[in-house]
Amino acid sequence: MLDLLKREVCEANLELVKKGVVIYTWGNVSGISSDREFMVIKPSGVPYDGMKPEDMVVLSIGTGKVVEGKWKPSSDTATHLELYRHFDSINAVVHTHSVNAVAFSQAGINIPAVGTTHADYFYGDIPCTRELLVHEVMDNYEANTGKVIIETIEKLGYDPMSIPGIVVRNHGPFTWGSDAANAVHNAVVLEKIAEMDYKTLMLNPSSEMKQYILDKHYMRKHGKNAYYGQ
Amino acid sequence: MLDLLKREVCEANLELVKKGVVIYTWGNVSGISSDREFMVIKPSGVPYDGMKPEDMVVLSIGTGKVVEGKWKPSSDTATHLELYRHFDSINAVVHTHSVNAVAFSQAGINIPAVGTTHADYFYGDIPCTRELLVHEVMDNYEANTGKVIIETIEKLGYDPMSIPGIVVRNHGPFTWGSDAANAVHNAVVLEKIAEMDYKTLMLNPSSEMKQYILDKHYMRKHGKNAYYGQ
Amino acid sequence: MLDLLKREVCEANLELVKKGVVIYTWGNVSGISSDREFMVIKPSGVPYDGMKPEDMVVLSIGTGKVVEGKWKPSSDTATHLELYRHFDSINAVVHTHSVNAVAFSQAGINIPAVGTTHADYFYGDIPCTRELLVHEVMDNYEANTGKVIIETIEKLGYDPMSIPGIVVRNHGPFTWGSDAANAVHNAVVLEKIAEMDYKTLMLNPSSEMKQYILDKHYMRKHGKNAYYGQ
Amino acid sequence: MLDLLKREVCEANLELVKKGVVIYTWGNVSGISSDREFMVIKPSGVPYDGMKPEDMVVLSIGTGKVVEGKWKPSSDTATHLELYRHFDSINAVVHTHSVNAVAFSQAGINIPAVGTTHADYFYGDIPCTRELLVHEVMDNYEANTGKVIIETIEKLGYDPMSIPGIVVRNHGPFTWGSDAANAVHNAVVLEKIAEMDYKTLMLNPSSEMKQYILDKHYMRKHGKNAYYGQ
Repeated sequence: MLDLLKREVCEANLELVKKGVVIYTWGNVSGISSDREFMVIKPSGVPYDGMKPEDMVVLSIGTGKVVEGKWKPSSDTATHLELYRHFDSINAVVHTHSVNAVAFSQAGINIPAVGTTHADYFYGDIPCTRELLVHEVMDNYEANTGKVIIETIEKLGYDPMSIPGIVVRNHGPFTWGSDAANAVHNAVVLEKIAEMDYKTLMLNPSSEMKQYILDKHYMRKHGKNAYYGQ
Repeated sequence: MLDLLKREVCEANLELVKKGVVIYTWGNVSGISSDREFMVIKPSGVPYDGMKPEDMVVLSIGTGKVVEGKWKPSSDTATHLELYRHFDSINAVVHTHSVNAVAFSQAGINIPAVGTTHADYFYGDIPCTRELLVHEVMDNYEANTGKVIIETIEKLGYDPMSIPGIVVRNHGPFTWGSDAANAVHNAVVLEKIAEMDYKTLMLNPSSEMKQYILDKHYMRKHGKNAYYGQ
Repeated sequence: MLDLLKREVCEANLELVKKGVVIYTWGNVSGISSDREFMVIKPSGVPYDGMKPEDMVVLSIGTGKVVEGKWKPSSDTATHLELYRHFDSINAVVHTHSVNAVAFSQAGINIPAVGTTHADYFYGDIPCTRELLVHEVMDNYEANTGKVIIETIEKLGYDPMSIPGIVVRNHGPFTWGSDAANAVHNAVVLEKIAEMDYKTLMLNPSSEMKQYILDKHYMRKHGKNAYYGQ
Repeated sequence: MLDLLKREVCEANLELVKKGVVIYTWGNVSGISSDREFMVIKPSGVPYDGMKPEDMVVLSIGTGKVVEGKWKPSSDTATHLELYRHFDSINAVVHTHSVNAVAFSQAGINIPAVGTTHADYFYGDIPCTRELLVHEVMDNYEANTGKVIIETIEKLGYDPMSIPGIVVRNHGPFTWGSDAANAVHNAVVLEKIAEMDYKTLMLNPSSEMKQYILDKHYMRKHGKNAYYGQ
């Protein structure tokens, strides 16, 4: 079942390696079926080298149980499920431990919207979540990781597709998108922006960008009168 | 029409990827015809992979309208046009989002002339433009990006070919040159210098170079008694 | 003798180069035989290029003497021997001069446990040893390098396999593992974590992670109820 | 004439590119004949791509004139000549603009001996020269670059082969060695050490290494009782 989605998700996992945002087994990509009943995700702790579409694991969004697949699903599965259940607009989720994004998550600092590279993809600062509390870590840790992402987005009150990524405190980046390839694209862009912003903050800790520049760049690409691209 | 220029501009766009100064569609190169009537530029938002000379777009310098091509031109087209209209000595323009140059543009800091690598190519600090005002962003943003580059160069009063690059505040680097390959060369050099200068400023924020060393290195390569090269 | 171990150790040495954690001859891997009587180690100062299993050197753990091999063993041989003699759980040892780990060792700073990437592999800060004293350097320097690693681990009172790496003051990282491939894996991870933590400390010098997050991530992968992987 | 030396010098120039310490034409390697009568050096401003031994230029050490070759010699020729004339132990010279070494030269800071990687190759801090004076730049600039290197070494009173490299203020690194390959090796090592030390100083500006550790590591590899290597 879901052969096309499995191919897309497998391909997207391999793309993480090609783009240099994961080493070893440090990342995972999932996608949701168009009826939003099933999630396809990378297996847990299986090397990328030689990974095939048939290695992907299929789970029910409703029950969270595996419905097909020869491997156990990614240990971050519950985080992905939370995001799909809460946000109807998200069709794919990516998690990596890319260096610069992790640095922001470890430092507990938002990746600030200080340039047009950022504004072309993310309509505002990429938030760093709060630290999880002890009981949130002890029980249902992975689901709570999803919940703290949701809490952060809802408190700030924005559409998750307008800022399709976040850094989880002491952990690392999660991104999402319209499909698996797009979510990986956002993971690569988030890492590149984090690298730019790291150096920017080193050069000038009070760097900032005016709201109207953020508006302009985001809207010329994503607004209703967008004129970027074909 | 302009087959040779299309090949040069296409090749120069691909060279940006090979040199690691762009990922995805984050850059564009244009060139001007020898009669300065037409500009050839990369299409907007089209992947570099598989890009061919016939994908390039031809515009009239006078009217700014597309005169040939199956794609829409780069969204930065109006910036390129401004530069060609104002500076007769510029035959090609490059825009990238290379990491270190962007860091300076986001931090709002000139890339300082503190070494001979810089002096071999750029006769003085590479300026960072002022921030665009709200009305300059709301209307004719891309043309105004070109105008603020021109304003910066004219206020400082130098020949644009003597410092063939600039960083636009909150945006990133633009470079230019005698042809498309040369403008790309300058984009790669500007990025490498930005990387050197980032680390230099981290080690010693008050780093500087004497004017006579700048003069010597620039002139031995570009002055009338130049003796660098064959 | 020990053909399989020689192949594993040779392969692991070559993997250091592929992963970019050594250049030239700047690293060495050893492994111990299952009866813990013999150590197989890379020869001293021999290039990785073209290195073969039969170039490995076999030494007696008991006497520290070479028992087979056409080359002199690594100059760090005595360090490896100390570690095998003292810790029964260590089956392989790796030494590199990878850039970010060396930076911590030169700065005399522990690599702090500030993120889950770290917690997935190392159950606590990766310590930096004290400086060796003059007499420890003048006589039996390499053995004393092993002894200061042991001293550091014993003072802190942890199982060496729970934090399978250390940085030796002014020198660089040593890692170990269940076999040669695992010890190299730990060397690559330690370097990547050091890179993340370097940037983290630059962004926020007081970065830290709660003990319960460290516990959770380490235990979900290495604890008795581990559920990471297959 | 000097076919073997031309091959060695050409190969060493190409190795600079392979090791990532030069881009474009930003470096040069020379070697001296065994009778110390002739220097073979890279031509000026000629791309590395496709460079052949017969492109090398031969000059007389005595007169500084070209005696063979179809190209003009490197613009840094006079610097190389000064070093050969003054130091009998130097058989090859390399100049690059590698990023981290340039950062130290632009910041005007010695590359400090704070680790054993450094101590394995350089017996003390790698000095940064003083700034050249205006008359030293106006007349015979390249020869004066050589003279300030010599002045720095003589003031500090060490054998140039014991610290086979230096950074020239506002310019970049020069290294030397027993032959062209060895001088390139030293250029690559100097750059790697500069990268380590940059990060070390960022983490802890007062990092230092005891003299006895420097002595031990340098001597175990280069002293009369050296025991590193075969």
